[in-house]
Amino acid sequence: MTRAVRTATTLVVDIHSHFLPRSWPDLAARFGTPDWPWMRHLGPGKAMLMVGAQEFRPVTAACWDAAVRLEAMDRDGVDVQVLSATPLLFGYERPAAQALECARIFNDAALEVCAAAPRRLKSLCQVPLQDPELACGELSRAIDDGHVGVQIGNHVGPRDLNDEGIVTFLEHCATEGAAVFVHPWDMMASERMPRYMLPWLVAMPAETQLSILWLILSGAFERLPRSLKLCFAHGGGSFPYLIGRVDNAWRNRDIVREDCPRLPSSYIERFSVDAAVFSADALALLVKTMGEERVMLGSDYPFPLGEQQVGSLIRSHPTLPPATRAKLLGGNAARFFGLDPEPLASEGSRAASLSA
Amino acid sequence: MTRAVRTATTLVVDIHSHFLPRSWPDLAARFGTPDWPWMRHLGPGKAMLMVGAQEFRPVTAACWDAAVRLEAMDRDGVDVQVLSATPLLFGYERPAAQALECARIFNDAALEVCAAAPRRLKSLCQVPLQDPELACGELSRAIDDGHVGVQIGNHVGPRDLNDEGIVTFLEHCATEGAAVFVHPWDMMASERMPRYMLPWLVAMPAETQLSILWLILSGAFERLPRSLKLCFAHGGGSFPYLIGRVDNAWRNRDIVREDCPRLPSSYIERFSVDAAVFSADALALLVKTMGEERVMLGSDYPFPLGEQQVGSLIRSHPTLPPATRAKLLGGNAARFFGLDPEPLASEGSRAASLSA
Repeated sequence: MTRAVRTATTLVVDIHSHFLPRSWPDLAARFGTPDWPWMRHLGPGKAMLMVGAQEFRPVTAACWDAAVRLEAMDRDGVDVQVLSATPLLFGYERPAAQALECARIFNDAALEVCAAAPRRLKSLCQVPLQDPELACGELSRAIDDGHVGVQIGNHVGPRDLNDEGIVTFLEHCATEGAAVFVHPWDMMASERMPRYMLPWLVAMPAETQLSILWLILSGAFERLPRSLKLCFAHGGGSFPYLIGRVDNAWRNRDIVREDCPRLPSSYIERFSVDAAVFSADALALLVKTMGEERVMLGSDYPFPLGEQQVGSLIRSHPTLPPATRAKLLGGNAARFFGLDPEPLASEGSRAASLSA
Repeated sequence: MTRAVRTATTLVVDIHSHFLPRSWPDLAARFGTPDWPWMRHLGPGKAMLMVGAQEFRPVTAACWDAAVRLEAMDRDGVDVQVLSATPLLFGYERPAAQALECARIFNDAALEVCAAAPRRLKSLCQVPLQDPELACGELSRAIDDGHVGVQIGNHVGPRDLNDEGIVTFLEHCATEGAAVFVHPWDMMASERMPRYMLPWLVAMPAETQLSILWLILSGAFERLPRSLKLCFAHGGGSFPYLIGRVDNAWRNRDIVREDCPRLPSSYIERFSVDAAVFSADALALLVKTMGEERVMLGSDYPFPLGEQQVGSLIRSHPTLPPATRAKLLGGNAARFFGLDPEPLASEGSRAASLSA
């Protein structure tokens, strides 16, 4: 892997990256219920993320060590990274008070990681989304503490994003000016996908498409404020490729359009997506479908299903013009998250900003 | 809607269309079990497809009346239509002997519809896929009777296309030279999609992607003969947009590649897809991903979620060259189904061929 070539005037922001604290309180002991996530450390910089007694995913120090992250950012030419926890830590299926306590632990831990380089590391909080009132409260606390937005799962059991309580929470996010990043989780039909990470390859993109369609077809976008800053992971899942099928269905079946007064594709202006699609052709379709203002670099760093050299798909794209690539690499994210639009490099070396 | 302009030298074949007989024996009475499909006729040319006491879908005479179909084909400039039953009639969840009897009824009925214009109407049979031996037997009988291939559902309960019995059936299709058209059905996670035809918009494309990935990642394509003619509906579902994500996962996680020796995208040469994507941008991505030899016009006629003016997306495409459009419109299908590659128009009017 080579150091990414970059111009001094292009701000680069990776809006989709995950963190895990090095360790956290024993939640199973605290709440007296099994199967909470914990970290089993295996050696220097290596650990297994566990769920109860089950191995969930091998992880490295990149998850918790800001110095490792910053070194990778320097290698890949990334100015700013937006961190979020992993959906495994949401606890939406737990009692809301426990999910709130969990959220506070990980939200505070995220700020600790970011404190190593507060201009380069920004964080999204998590909230107990199963309880809109508690979720709104924790959102406000977290934004006051310095989080730039919130990551939510795309559903809470059978309740999707058009659920009345979740819409209330989204309205609160708009009021607070908090960006909302929607990550697929709790993947559908896992019994049909027992191997080969199929839930990540098939169900995650379907989850994201489903949640976007619930917002569109239920009419929820008609009620939500236009000021809501909403972004979906993984290039919008299957949505961009399938929107033609949805428009065609809306035109020809009354039961598709009964709660949705406008052509489904007309709601594309209401949300953004990250660019984690791992294919130049898919990225071209994504930009054409969403518009060049609504696609933002997102890598899924530091996980193996993420982009291994962050930003390389956009930087090396054979057809996107330089101005479009600059928007995707950071211009759109600066606006979306309210970041300083000047590249940090123009104000000193990345290394120097470590102690900023 | 205007009559489609066409050149005399472009054969046009619609490979994805559905039929229903005008009526069929009372299956509930015959088998002594409830919830079999039947037709409730509502007036001239109008009926409700029923499942037991439940209304499934309003349908018209286009489903069973060859004259109506041929008139629509003339209007849209379609030379040949390949008919298949609807997945609702598969009966894979029933005792295999009943599904076989069901298959025979609908396979014979399909040939009756096609008999009105045997050079313009071709049919795919159905088989009791839950029982590979019975399925192979009915496939051979149907091919002998004049069917050009078989339509199968993309799974049988928890068994996907890599299931040993289904692979045996696919091998038999290759031996018989029978084309296999895979249609998504029995859609996943319907409890999450109770409204707006979401199972058709989200789960169907995910079903198709899932089945393609089972064939690739399980290594089934390594065992299946290269002569197998395999085609997936709806532009391959979500597969074409997400193949970059799959390749990236294969490269970076051992559990993704453990049974799949080659890069997942390298198996694209092993199957075709129809062009039912309802968006010029999606069709461009589809052709770029699959290659111009492996995409064939398919409309989902005469259902409301199908292309209302068959072939218009391909004919009016802003960037596909004429030679590519000709392949998509019929050249590829002629090869795939072993049809006469000469347009019927060069051998007389479409009307004349009605009595051919």
